[in-house]
Amino acid sequence: MSGPQAENGQSLLIGRTIDHLATPAFVVDLDVVKANCERMLARAQKGGLHLRGQTKTHKTVEGAIYQTGGTRRGLVTSTLVESEMYANAGFDDILYGYPILSTHMQRNLKLAQKLESYHLMVTNKESIQILLANPPPPGKKWSVFMKIDCGNSREGFWWSDQDCIEAALEIRKYPAVMTLQGTYVHCGNTYKSQDSNQVEKTRDETIKMLIGVSKRMSEHGIKFDNIGIGSTPSCSHDSALYAQISEIHPGNYVFYDAQQEKLGSCGMGDVAGKVLTRVIGHSVRRNQLLVDCGFSALTKQGFQELDQSFARVEGHPMLKLCDMTQEIGKVGWDLDDSINFDDFPVGSTLSLIPYHACATAAMYPVYYVHQNQMIKEEWRPCRGW
Amino acid sequence: MSGPQAENGQSLLIGRTIDHLATPAFVVDLDVVKANCERMLARAQKGGLHLRGQTKTHKTVEGAIYQTGGTRRGLVTSTLVESEMYANAGFDDILYGYPILSTHMQRNLKLAQKLESYHLMVTNKESIQILLANPPPPGKKWSVFMKIDCGNSREGFWWSDQDCIEAALEIRKYPAVMTLQGTYVHCGNTYKSQDSNQVEKTRDETIKMLIGVSKRMSEHGIKFDNIGIGSTPSCSHDSALYAQISEIHPGNYVFYDAQQEKLGSCGMGDVAGKVLTRVIGHSVRRNQLLVDCGFSALTKQGFQELDQSFARVEGHPMLKLCDMTQEIGKVGWDLDDSINFDDFPVGSTLSLIPYHACATAAMYPVYYVHQNQMIKEEWRPCRGW
Repeated sequence: MSGPQAENGQSLLIGRTIDHLATPAFVVDLDVVKANCERMLARAQKGGLHLRGQTKTHKTVEGAIYQTGGTRRGLVTSTLVESEMYANAGFDDILYGYPILSTHMQRNLKLAQKLESYHLMVTNKESIQILLANPPPPGKKWSVFMKIDCGNSREGFWWSDQDCIEAALEIRKYPAVMTLQGTYVHCGNTYKSQDSNQVEKTRDETIKMLIGVSKRMSEHGIKFDNIGIGSTPSCSHDSALYAQISEIHPGNYVFYDAQQEKLGSCGMGDVAGKVLTRVIGHSVRRNQLLVDCGFSALTKQGFQELDQSFARVEGHPMLKLCDMTQEIGKVGWDLDDSINFDDFPVGSTLSLIPYHACATAAMYPVYYVHQNQMIKEEWRPCRGW
Repeated sequence: MSGPQAENGQSLLIGRTIDHLATPAFVVDLDVVKANCERMLARAQKGGLHLRGQTKTHKTVEGAIYQTGGTRRGLVTSTLVESEMYANAGFDDILYGYPILSTHMQRNLKLAQKLESYHLMVTNKESIQILLANPPPPGKKWSVFMKIDCGNSREGFWWSDQDCIEAALEIRKYPAVMTLQGTYVHCGNTYKSQDSNQVEKTRDETIKMLIGVSKRMSEHGIKFDNIGIGSTPSCSHDSALYAQISEIHPGNYVFYDAQQEKLGSCGMGDVAGKVLTRVIGHSVRRNQLLVDCGFSALTKQGFQELDQSFARVEGHPMLKLCDMTQEIGKVGWDLDDSINFDDFPVGSTLSLIPYHACATAAMYPVYYVHQNQMIKEEWRPCRGW
């Protein structure tokens, strides 16, 4: 499950090439991760923005070190388990970017005690009631971001609703308990775009809505330091409007994936996380290869979006991962002639580019991190909630 | 991640009711698991069959104890990690029911050494070559089942092909290296059925094909003890033809799920594994509840099959889990009027019946096992390959 270990506890796979791995395996190209993280940090710096990296795609300490450029400061997480892992690993300035429930508050209290700067997300009026019912640690206040919905249509205050202003006024009523850190938008509606022009249009409209919210709040005397927007598609391009906000919080960019390539967020060469799989059989009758990547090693997403394939087969555009059971994938051939099965003997490897890295990475207890195919590190993501 | 622990290592959740759990949580009704396992054992006994339970749905020691009626003898696994976990937990007579690769053989060797009875699956002619290249442990032979494809169209020898007989003859050539234990069919094509009549028709056709294979092999003087068929839909009903086979190997029945209910394998009351989720917000604008079950807590399967819902919402047939992002589900209302949001306050729980238990259970590091809602045990599944 965790790879063979030598007596000194060192993985026996470190220093070997990835073709020595048992399959299916999630392999991560370290140089690509570094380049993706450096590029996003540079874009933020150029725009005068703070980069608060979302950790939900990789959920590893190592990945977050690259996201923060080594400072270990400034993250947004999707689960309490992530928040706790990063707090224990010396990270600080962590936003638990999820709707608040009463059942979270005991763990939130410990995190707020431990960290210099731990933030929560107010997504509705109930969030404020929960904070009022759960006192912050002595000498501290709950630091909160308000989640604004600018068209993503998930959680948060609808940007043009009066509720939004009322919630901010409500927060201001309790200065001993909570303090408004800023507003936060996840422009996940960019994922519905057909190309990067549409992504950029949605992002810029979102920024304008958010600026509008800030102005209306300001008219009520409500001030805060941070205005942030997120989603990897929107943050993978520069914008003249970045000057009007303070923070971006993309996450997927650490690995990128076939979906992001389709959206114009990256090139295929920027995809860092791939699934290594082996051919386990041939069906001449059906003109198919069988591989040891089923849905438990990839998840079922993106079939329509990738032209009837659950993943891109690297270097073989004519191969389609057309069906999967739990542990077996069926790879078809997109031409009328027959697969040359001698090119894909049983035991040979294929590299799959996932449609959605967040979903695929979550299936693996360990990522094998390589440079030029040589395994350098093993990263172990946290999981659960 | 693994639930709070007291100083003595005992989970603090044992003895509490499931509404104390952090959500999302995978909750398993112990009495339903026991009843499902006992019913399948009774059906096998009635038909004079050996039940070799497939472990891929739950992947726990505890679940397999119920599957084997406490004997810890007779399992089929889908991964080497499962085989190793069961071997270490005192189980024996384990079939690693997966195509053989050279990269598996070091671990297969250890398992064959350790166990009295460890079996491998020959799915193609390459399997035999791999066994010949990897000697069995001293004093032992590789015990193999031949996988036959009777219409499932995945791995294995096509039932009517001459290849099938030739492979059996090839196995017989090397009596010092390998011994043919029997034939094995996964009639997964039953999952394409509309109802249980169609399931039973496919199952009985499969048994007839398999008997035909045995007869043809017998004409070549090839004898073996076991003829087995599997899949939970086909094994959830009696058959007059069971008298002609020796073994069944269903797996999903331990938990069952909404897919199995639709196929007529079980009633909704037989579903043992469910996802407990909490309401995290309301959208009056979209007439939706938001819940803390995203695709990372359920996986995206079965949307079309469950009438535009990724799960059944227990007790609320009008609620549809109509969309999911990684950590958030959107629950819509299947009527023209508005949801009465007061009935579903933020923090209240809903119980989701998964479409596919194998996929959903795999998302959880721990299952909370309860009797009448009281948490009795925590089961920790293995994962990886």
